[in-house]
Amino acid sequence: MPALEKVSSNRVSTGSLTKYKFPSSSLSLPTQFNLFVPSSASPSSPVPVLFYLAGLTCNEDTGAQKGAFLNKAGEEGIAIVFPDTSPRGAGVEGEDDDWQLGTGAGFYLNATSEKWKKHYNMYDLVVKELPEVLKEADLGLDFSRVSIFGHSMGGHGALSIYLKNPGQYKSSSAFAPACNPSKTPWGVNAFTNYLNAVTRSSPPSEWLQYDSSHLLQSFKGDAHILVDVGTEDDFLKKGQLEPKTLERVGKEGVEVRMQEGFDHSYYFISTFAPEHVAFHAKYLKA
Amino acid sequence: MPALEKVSSNRVSTGSLTKYKFPSSSLSLPTQFNLFVPSSASPSSPVPVLFYLAGLTCNEDTGAQKGAFLNKAGEEGIAIVFPDTSPRGAGVEGEDDDWQLGTGAGFYLNATSEKWKKHYNMYDLVVKELPEVLKEADLGLDFSRVSIFGHSMGGHGALSIYLKNPGQYKSSSAFAPACNPSKTPWGVNAFTNYLNAVTRSSPPSEWLQYDSSHLLQSFKGDAHILVDVGTEDDFLKKGQLEPKTLERVGKEGVEVRMQEGFDHSYYFISTFAPEHVAFHAKYLKA
Repeated sequence: MPALEKVSSNRVSTGSLTKYKFPSSSLSLPTQFNLFVPSSASPSSPVPVLFYLAGLTCNEDTGAQKGAFLNKAGEEGIAIVFPDTSPRGAGVEGEDDDWQLGTGAGFYLNATSEKWKKHYNMYDLVVKELPEVLKEADLGLDFSRVSIFGHSMGGHGALSIYLKNPGQYKSSSAFAPACNPSKTPWGVNAFTNYLNAVTRSSPPSEWLQYDSSHLLQSFKGDAHILVDVGTEDDFLKKGQLEPKTLERVGKEGVEVRMQEGFDHSYYFISTFAPEHVAFHAKYLKA
Repeated sequence: MPALEKVSSNRVSTGSLTKYKFPSSSLSLPTQFNLFVPSSASPSSPVPVLFYLAGLTCNEDTGAQKGAFLNKAGEEGIAIVFPDTSPRGAGVEGEDDDWQLGTGAGFYLNATSEKWKKHYNMYDLVVKELPEVLKEADLGLDFSRVSIFGHSMGGHGALSIYLKNPGQYKSSSAFAPACNPSKTPWGVNAFTNYLNAVTRSSPPSEWLQYDSSHLLQSFKGDAHILVDVGTEDDFLKKGQLEPKTLERVGKEGVEVRMQEGFDHSYYFISTFAPEHVAFHAKYLKA
């Protein structure tokens, strides 16, 4: 197991935020993440864990600095892991040319196309490797109580990861998520490039495995999902988010709230941040 | 009175944050600021106003994005004005060469030295011009109820402005402020450059008019001052802040709290942000 290198640490809320770096086997590259741990956490009294997945162009700092999650997480006694949004420095041709693909745009999937598959495996990083590395580090985190949330591309990540892994996460929530990426521009662009689709269906089944609206249809068991979308979100207006497709599945336990006047920014996120942390706390501490 | 040009606007908390631009006569340049107004505000029911002054290298966005003030301000029904930290594009020789002087480092004073005096007048901008411009704009703000707070250089600004203008502000608070700038490196550097000091005293009286520890000694009336400083603040260790000089004045109504383990960052600020907003609310809504 690779050693975690401490890059920086700041006291915040009722605990501290530490930035770690380690050589990721999923990404075949070093990666960084931030970890907030309330001071109540200890190996003998571990705290539940919430993953926050950020959106396009963001990194491991964005949610930690602008999300306003930490005071509520500290109060609730919940740790938060903030992964990066893609590998960095993979050297794939064109990876820095388009903000919607490549660097800062990993889409929380495992790439299968020849060009991207060596490094672009954020799904494995978030779902498997980070929990393993953190368990090993013995930091007072309880990986039997984990939830996941995110914003925009990270909202897609949080919902799809939750739905693909029944029982692994207690709850999922999202701010302005891309709910139907197999049919909307960001997702189609990402899936076309990252995924080696051989099926003839349209969209290909390789895409549907990462589409939350599709995954929700066959999701068994109780869903614990909260989604907030601002009515003035430009990406909603441009058809990137499509929360209605998620809502139309009609699954119990999925709440989609349209928030009047809010946009796609962290001002929107920070407003509802305490409610989302409280939503997860309800399931993580049940 | 110059017209306020709306640069952008975001719904946040119980209201909205709007970025404005206008030609400042204090700065002889256009300047930008952010204004948070809770939706409860109206010309017939105006809300109290809190000024937030940011630190070195920051601008009008820093506190709005990273400070975590807005949820509490919205709940309390208080507006917050976030000015910039200096003029931008003044064209003074060397103004972009040193992060401690010039751009991003206006020190909330009125410059008197030949080189800087045309543009570097952040004191007049904050104390006189912004309130006038905002009153004229009729945005539902009550300028009979105003308080002021800030961080680092902006903490110096908030305390010195409060102390120089008895009765104009209800309360003042600061995160990691430079409390004794006439004797500490940032302040000495700024005052040496910005101020045309002709008195022979040491420090010159021209410097002491912006030194909170000095101003507090002759402050009449009730002081309402709260200061938080982290014990792990590198600038505290380097002697830039000197909160003890402020404390040693022994003035009633001045609370200086050393916060164990916290540093100089916005992680520190965001942790105590709700307490500071609540502190001001007590006086603004008395």
